Amino acid sequence: MKATVYHGARDVRLETVPDPVLRSPKDAIVRVTRTAICGSDLWFYRGITQWEPGDRTGHEFVGIVEDAGSEVGSVRRGDHVIAPFVSSDGTCEFCRAGLQTSCVRMSNFGDEQNGGQAEAVLVPYADGTLVKAAPEIAGDERLMTASLALCDVMPTGHHGVVSSGAAAGTTVAVVGDGAVGLCAVLSAARVVGAENVIAIGHNAKRLEMARAFGATHAYNSHDDGIGGRIVELTKGGVSHVVEAVGNQESMDLAVEIARPGGTVAFVGVPHNVKEPALRPLFLKNVALRGALAPARAYLETLMARVVDGTIDPSSVFDLKLPLDRVADGYKAMDERHAIKVSLTAN
Amino acid sequence: MKATVYHGARDVRLETVPDPVLRSPKDAIVRVTRTAICGSDLWFYRGITQWEPGDRTGHEFVGIVEDAGSEVGSVRRGDHVIAPFVSSDGTCEFCRAGLQTSCVRMSNFGDEQNGGQAEAVLVPYADGTLVKAAPEIAGDERLMTASLALCDVMPTGHHGVVSSGAAAGTTVAVVGDGAVGLCAVLSAARVVGAENVIAIGHNAKRLEMARAFGATHAYNSHDDGIGGRIVELTKGGVSHVVEAVGNQESMDLAVEIARPGGTVAFVGVPHNVKEPALRPLFLKNVALRGALAPARAYLETLMARVVDGTIDPSSVFDLKLPLDRVADGYKAMDERHAIKVSLTAN
Repeated sequence: MKATVYHGARDVRLETVPDPVLRSPKDAIVRVTRTAICGSDLWFYRGITQWEPGDRTGHEFVGIVEDAGSEVGSVRRGDHVIAPFVSSDGTCEFCRAGLQTSCVRMSNFGDEQNGGQAEAVLVPYADGTLVKAAPEIAGDERLMTASLALCDVMPTGHHGVVSSGAAAGTTVAVVGDGAVGLCAVLSAARVVGAENVIAIGHNAKRLEMARAFGATHAYNSHDDGIGGRIVELTKGGVSHVVEAVGNQESMDLAVEIARPGGTVAFVGVPHNVKEPALRPLFLKNVALRGALAPARAYLETLMARVVDGTIDPSSVFDLKLPLDRVADGYKAMDERHAIKVSLTAN
Repeated sequence: MKATVYHGARDVRLETVPDPVLRSPKDAIVRVTRTAICGSDLWFYRGITQWEPGDRTGHEFVGIVEDAGSEVGSVRRGDHVIAPFVSSDGTCEFCRAGLQTSCVRMSNFGDEQNGGQAEAVLVPYADGTLVKAAPEIAGDERLMTASLALCDVMPTGHHGVVSSGAAAGTTVAVVGDGAVGLCAVLSAARVVGAENVIAIGHNAKRLEMARAFGATHAYNSHDDGIGGRIVELTKGGVSHVVEAVGNQESMDLAVEIARPGGTVAFVGVPHNVKEPALRPLFLKNVALRGALAPARAYLETLMARVVDGTIDPSSVFDLKLPLDRVADGYKAMDERHAIKVSLTAN
């Protein structure tokens, strides 16, 4: 089969690799129909995170079960399925608590020899990992694309909102207008039911999408004194802040606009945060909550909201390519020509 | 009157200064009976925090109301009172929410021209700030000393425990065996009712006191691989961690032993934390909660627990001196000969 292989900074290639085979009676093999490139893939693509040549890429995919081990009970050959971005056993303490990213048997797709940007993927612990797609999804182009957002960006944005302590009627601020930030806006406005959703970014087109996703306010993060203005407008700051960029500037802004007693949830792997804003966190009694999303925990709920039309995250994919143009997809995201790329595999 | 004045690193002196006078009908003047030296006072004493020569020191004191403005209703001349370490108006949104350290009219004692290590202190917003001491306290030497712990260290330790999300029956770990760490142990074991309280420090005598305060386990933080051992013993880490030191080593240990989905509350002003442990916080979904204690919010409750004998934090004061030996008190704490110093003023 074909799979995307990392060769070095800004060098990924679709290559022929061995077909995956079942290694355990709990495994399944999924033939990929749609896969995606993640903002976090750019860290290794740009050479910032060190990967080894030969590593396989991609952790977001939906597809059809091609084979399943004898102990797999929840899905079978031919089922359309959605995969969260890590596998989990579904039975350990952390899985039962809805924290599948801390599963004691968790494994990653991508950055091992089993990536999602491929024609097929081996899924460990299929019962704990995969979710059968609602029957409305298969064959519906828009719903297929929306379901691909359920692998990572939509649950990640949603988890940021949930982790920030937001609830119906509250005010939520989202720092960052990438795919995750936009999904956080969608979650806050449509799933959680926040009354005010403040989107902060620096791309006019994306901020426009944030408004379409339910943002009641949109601000340019590059405007002078924007933090102070938001604190003033909210009469003291925002209790629920989602930081969806992961650099020093965005973290500082998130902490600056946090209201005393509030929470900043950060949903991107932080890469360029050198100085923790510990002093304002301390003085304001603000919690900083790291928030790697247990996507599996939210998958059924968010899928139901996609199918019933409450949310439609499909438009975060603004570039669609066939899998054999995966390298062009990375380039488009690296150069910020695309918010997020979907790849059609089969 | 006499008050302690900062002159430079390791140079504080008791000097004659003007008597305080009421500036507003909401003010009170308190004649100090007992005052204390705080671990956080060592930051300016050691020249790490920049203070100006002439600044007045001290933010922990109990005493007797000497004068009160016409609008003060809750205390009057002759009342024994306990002061939290900042003043607050008692009426703003944050005071009503129990976050008096974020009061919109908050002011500090010490580091302005009105310190607590003095014979008298001007207290702004006396109704929002002072708490009348229970009648059992005045005249009882042990209760007088215990009440001095209610100004800062006891509510700070307690706030750490509360902020960590601990509740009855849970497991709490406290990193640090200074006065605040010891008070956190006391809160976890006796006020909150945690089932397991793990004290971590590196002073045998203090760890012994932690056991007397209710710690069920005590570990030396300098033991090799202590973090990993605690994670192993707790089968995955501790959900409620209080970090009561404020340096890189203790923060790293606190994050290391935090259980996925848990909380690390840090209760000391962080001074030497250069590298935030953001990646493990993110991967484990652990919240880092800055926790400047709204001492005023807990004062009545903790005073009741002192009076009824549930808690006795008086032994954290292991050196008692008259106010005119304040310089010796700083020296003893700086050189770690004393956990915490109380000064008798009148």
